[in-house]
Amino acid sequence: MTVPHVDDVHPAWLPPEAFRAIGARRVLVLADGSPLSGTVRAEVADACARHGGAVAAPGEPYDLVLALASGGSLPPEAAALKGPELGPEGFLLARTGGVTAVLADAPAGLLYGFFAVVRLGEAAFEGERPAETHRPALERRMLDHWDNIDVHPVMGQVERGYSGGSIFWRDGVLHEDLTRVRAYARLLAATGVNAVAVNNVNVHAPEARLLTDRLDEVAALAAEFRPYGIRVHLSVNFASPIALGGLETADPADERVRAWWARTTERVYAAIPDFGGYVVKADSEGQPGPFAYGRDHADGANMLADALAPHGGVVHWRAFVYNHRQDWRDRSTDRARAAYDHFAPLDGRFRDNAIVQVKYGPIDFQTREPVSPVIAAMPDTRLAVELQVTQEYTGQQRHVCYLAPMWSEVLGFRFWGEGEPAVAEVIKSGGLVAVSNVGDDRYWTGHPLAQANLYAFGRLAWDPGLDPVAILDEWIGLTFVPGDDEGGERLRATLHGMMDGSWRTYERYTAPLGVGFMVRPGHHYGPDVDGYEYTPWGTYHFADRDGVGVDRTRATGTGYTGQYPKPWSEVYESLAECPDELLLFFHHVPYGHVLHSGVTVIQHIYDTHFAGAEEAAEIRALWAKLEGDGLVDPALHARVRELLDEQVRSAEEWRDQINSYFYRKSGVPDARGRTIY
Amino acid sequence: MTVPHVDDVHPAWLPPEAFRAIGARRVLVLADGSPLSGTVRAEVADACARHGGAVAAPGEPYDLVLALASGGSLPPEAAALKGPELGPEGFLLARTGGVTAVLADAPAGLLYGFFAVVRLGEAAFEGERPAETHRPALERRMLDHWDNIDVHPVMGQVERGYSGGSIFWRDGVLHEDLTRVRAYARLLAATGVNAVAVNNVNVHAPEARLLTDRLDEVAALAAEFRPYGIRVHLSVNFASPIALGGLETADPADERVRAWWARTTERVYAAIPDFGGYVVKADSEGQPGPFAYGRDHADGANMLADALAPHGGVVHWRAFVYNHRQDWRDRSTDRARAAYDHFAPLDGRFRDNAIVQVKYGPIDFQTREPVSPVIAAMPDTRLAVELQVTQEYTGQQRHVCYLAPMWSEVLGFRFWGEGEPAVAEVIKSGGLVAVSNVGDDRYWTGHPLAQANLYAFGRLAWDPGLDPVAILDEWIGLTFVPGDDEGGERLRATLHGMMDGSWRTYERYTAPLGVGFMVRPGHHYGPDVDGYEYTPWGTYHFADRDGVGVDRTRATGTGYTGQYPKPWSEVYESLAECPDELLLFFHHVPYGHVLHSGVTVIQHIYDTHFAGAEEAAEIRALWAKLEGDGLVDPALHARVRELLDEQVRSAEEWRDQINSYFYRKSGVPDARGRTIY
Repeated sequence: MTVPHVDDVHPAWLPPEAFRAIGARRVLVLADGSPLSGTVRAEVADACARHGGAVAAPGEPYDLVLALASGGSLPPEAAALKGPELGPEGFLLARTGGVTAVLADAPAGLLYGFFAVVRLGEAAFEGERPAETHRPALERRMLDHWDNIDVHPVMGQVERGYSGGSIFWRDGVLHEDLTRVRAYARLLAATGVNAVAVNNVNVHAPEARLLTDRLDEVAALAAEFRPYGIRVHLSVNFASPIALGGLETADPADERVRAWWARTTERVYAAIPDFGGYVVKADSEGQPGPFAYGRDHADGANMLADALAPHGGVVHWRAFVYNHRQDWRDRSTDRARAAYDHFAPLDGRFRDNAIVQVKYGPIDFQTREPVSPVIAAMPDTRLAVELQVTQEYTGQQRHVCYLAPMWSEVLGFRFWGEGEPAVAEVIKSGGLVAVSNVGDDRYWTGHPLAQANLYAFGRLAWDPGLDPVAILDEWIGLTFVPGDDEGGERLRATLHGMMDGSWRTYERYTAPLGVGFMVRPGHHYGPDVDGYEYTPWGTYHFADRDGVGVDRTRATGTGYTGQYPKPWSEVYESLAECPDELLLFFHHVPYGHVLHSGVTVIQHIYDTHFAGAEEAAEIRALWAKLEGDGLVDPALHARVRELLDEQVRSAEEWRDQINSYFYRKSGVPDARGRTIY
Repeated sequence: MTVPHVDDVHPAWLPPEAFRAIGARRVLVLADGSPLSGTVRAEVADACARHGGAVAAPGEPYDLVLALASGGSLPPEAAALKGPELGPEGFLLARTGGVTAVLADAPAGLLYGFFAVVRLGEAAFEGERPAETHRPALERRMLDHWDNIDVHPVMGQVERGYSGGSIFWRDGVLHEDLTRVRAYARLLAATGVNAVAVNNVNVHAPEARLLTDRLDEVAALAAEFRPYGIRVHLSVNFASPIALGGLETADPADERVRAWWARTTERVYAAIPDFGGYVVKADSEGQPGPFAYGRDHADGANMLADALAPHGGVVHWRAFVYNHRQDWRDRSTDRARAAYDHFAPLDGRFRDNAIVQVKYGPIDFQTREPVSPVIAAMPDTRLAVELQVTQEYTGQQRHVCYLAPMWSEVLGFRFWGEGEPAVAEVIKSGGLVAVSNVGDDRYWTGHPLAQANLYAFGRLAWDPGLDPVAILDEWIGLTFVPGDDEGGERLRATLHGMMDGSWRTYERYTAPLGVGFMVRPGHHYGPDVDGYEYTPWGTYHFADRDGVGVDRTRATGTGYTGQYPKPWSEVYESLAECPDELLLFFHHVPYGHVLHSGVTVIQHIYDTHFAGAEEAAEIRALWAKLEGDGLVDPALHARVRELLDEQVRSAEEWRDQINSYFYRKSGVPDARGRTIY
């Protein structure tokens, strides 16, 4: 194993400086001959070679010891830690008597422990540190790539990708040099991610073949991810038995179909023994699925689960199922209800290795949605929650929008009220999944500051209880290596000032009060208030001259509030209790309705849109102050500056379109007399 | 010359039966050795071979004589006709003493005379017919193809094409078999068209090379068009001297640039001696042009005119120039003004062989627009009017929309009032141009009934005074060959019932009262009332809760009405006098404004949209009655039936979206209580 370093690509949160604290010291590694142990050794050697430290041989003195508990003769610092079961990925971290020690039961834990020390930096080598046990809260922490092999005529190389092309494929073939994939694996491992699905859930013809005659490409990718403890998953097309297998059906009850999947899966495992499993988007937005054969989603998922079970694989079966050919005239159909209506009745019918993957909200990755009630409705099913690190609806990596605060709210949401389990507990065995925001861009994520979202995803998936601002601080420290001086403090404060509240800022200048969408159809960037209003997509706001919002109450609306357990079924139902930020998701109200904040809905729309655009300008102004003072690489500064110009322009466009739209409709002037066109 | 017949392609208005009247008779051709005379001979021979008639040798008896006046020893029927100058394309037609005679000064006239006899059919051989002189009213009658060589990722093979791929190119290369191109030339010649531009005015990289190293492809196409009297033109990229010539400038004042165009044009004429000339879209929607060099459109056009002049070619320079990056907040900028503002000041500065090509309306091929004031503003410039046979904004060949009534209104419009010249007279030396609706579809035009638009374009370009319903009747007769029996009468009546008023029907269910657009951005099909409202494209309706429309008056608006001469500058300016159908193009009015028709604007919107959708359903019902009675080919019937289903669906969608939109905005209920969602 060689530690991957890629020229001309930004090192993100693993610059050489991040390894100085370890690399300048004497490090003892006591591990086995496994590949992951080899990675830890290589990392340590690489850091020490760069920063003047040394890999300690047994018997030599050391400042840091990284030891497997199974490793027989443990040094006293490590031996003293032995105690609770750490599991396949956990580790203990302590410092006593001038020695920092990491102990793990398994090599993956050792690797995560190593990166924990990287994150701590010098602090890992100061004073005493009582033993801390670290275990991931969630079993699977996964990134889904929506990468295509060919450039899709509409969606491009990466669907909803805003960071250039795919790091896996270019022009229909796998990249010749996959060093960058390994560097990506390393970045992910440092955050705690342990699974990656490599291709788009909309599986077109060329990508379908990854399962069969292009399997060697998946194997090649797996070889790059493996040294960093990441298992590779594959999105598959439900109709593969027809398209690839020459059968005339993909019916999950058909024995030939089941045999085809079993055989095909066996071949996958022959090539990739640690293959993770399949990801499936079925009967959704035109993708094939079990409905064609009169089967349900459990039938479909279980068929694949059965093929994967003998090999230890799982199927991620997406719950993103709704009627995308809805008639906008029909106000009784509610897309928000769809996932629950399809999946809740199937609870208990899914195999143990079938994971139902649920988007965090009931619609589609909006800036603000209530948490999907499906998550509370399937106690006897392994559930994963799906987030979107790629900023499809949150600024497309042209806007600064740090999403961890939103994810933190989702993961901490308690369906059954205070004291009851939070979402993070519900999905313990299922996991957290997110659509990646990475491409072949020099900064990985297009917008350099969007790296923070990728980082924060991994960290929250490992520990959903982490404070998003603390994660951001960690990311700033690793990525920008600010010094302890005034300049370093200023840089840190500037980035917090720009990013801590950026999700709320984005929310302010876009669709108001949880109503969602209002984006340009197709590419989903920028405002178009009525863009989806009269379409089959089921995403409406119903604004007229009197009011706006979707009535999803049981009393007078679509009844969606009834999909929640108490207390939320009552809170959302009640106009008086419904939180302001979700008001228009649940209720249709007159423009004069007074919010808990004390202002009317229409004045709130004006106020937040003026405020949001101003905040965007302030974010830009903060960054501008860093120019030329040497705290940030000039090229990175220039890239962010250009993007901030676009963010400010776009925020003003949002402000003016939304304000004009609602002024034209309501006729209510701004109480503060600001310009509305 | 062989008369082209293409298997598996619908013969349009030239089915074998159309030649029966001629082909069953004895025909004498007295012509020269020119290619066009050869075409006439071949057509006659082909018809006679098929229908049992005979080509008469001199001295033999004949029923029809087609003779060139220059042809020395004219038979008496022809000699008697000699008189007025007929010009290069005119002909005389007469019947006396049982002989029908066509006399022409030039071979093209003979060909047009031949097709005139085809159109007449048996009527050409009945009774006596006093001599009629036929000359085209307009010098150039031209179809522009917006065909691409490669499939454009957004626009496809044919930009704004709704009839399959290009008949010229497929997958980046010229079709191997060009018989279909010749068959197309024949169809056009039968209507009077004498010029075709073969490629898209948005000239991308591959098409730019048609001017130089791919010139052989243009020559090959010209060889197919030539036998039917059609000259080939080429859309060129203004920046060709840079892209193809290796110069660093395309400045029309630069001698190297001028020399490059002269040299290049000389080579074009060496390969295609009867080459027609260039078509240019410059400084428009992102295309390069003279503005980059501080030159104006006359400078640009004249440069190309000078290169073409020695060879007898012309340049068509499009006046479709406007700011497509307009700020929607800025109500003072008016796209409707743009062409006039750019071009009117240049009147008198264009070379004699430079033709300024003006879209019929000031915006962009809408269902209803006032006639472009540019046409009245450049008396010292050769002007061509550009129509759009391809139904970009008029139903995309999925809707029946017979456009000749609209074109007839445009050509007959009198800028200076009754008794003053009509548009058709203004453009005499410039001509009429239209974007073709033809593709490699089996019916040429996707919708079989859209053939009528292509046919009518040629006929109106030849004689703008023709009655659109009479043209349609002619087209029905040729295409469907209805018999004189009840069935034939019924078929004829059905098609008139479906098509005569179909433009008005389409207008009723789409954007109201001349306001335009309200289509889905990008593909321009189907409704999206606000789709362009907050975009940079300059096409707005300004609807708010009180009213709708664009104030283009001098008194309070953009002043566009001032671009018209009297009386129209006064008529359009006046709210009281402005024609209803253009009211919202010129005025912003409250929903309660009462139209000349006696109803309010809002009630008019509801009424016309309910009526339009009903009429669409009636059109479908008329067609359905023809099913299975043998009057129409079953495959054609099925194709039209499917398209009518889509038209009815789409008309209802328009109805409901427009009605809901304006109901939500105005709050005014339908006086007749019909369903508005």
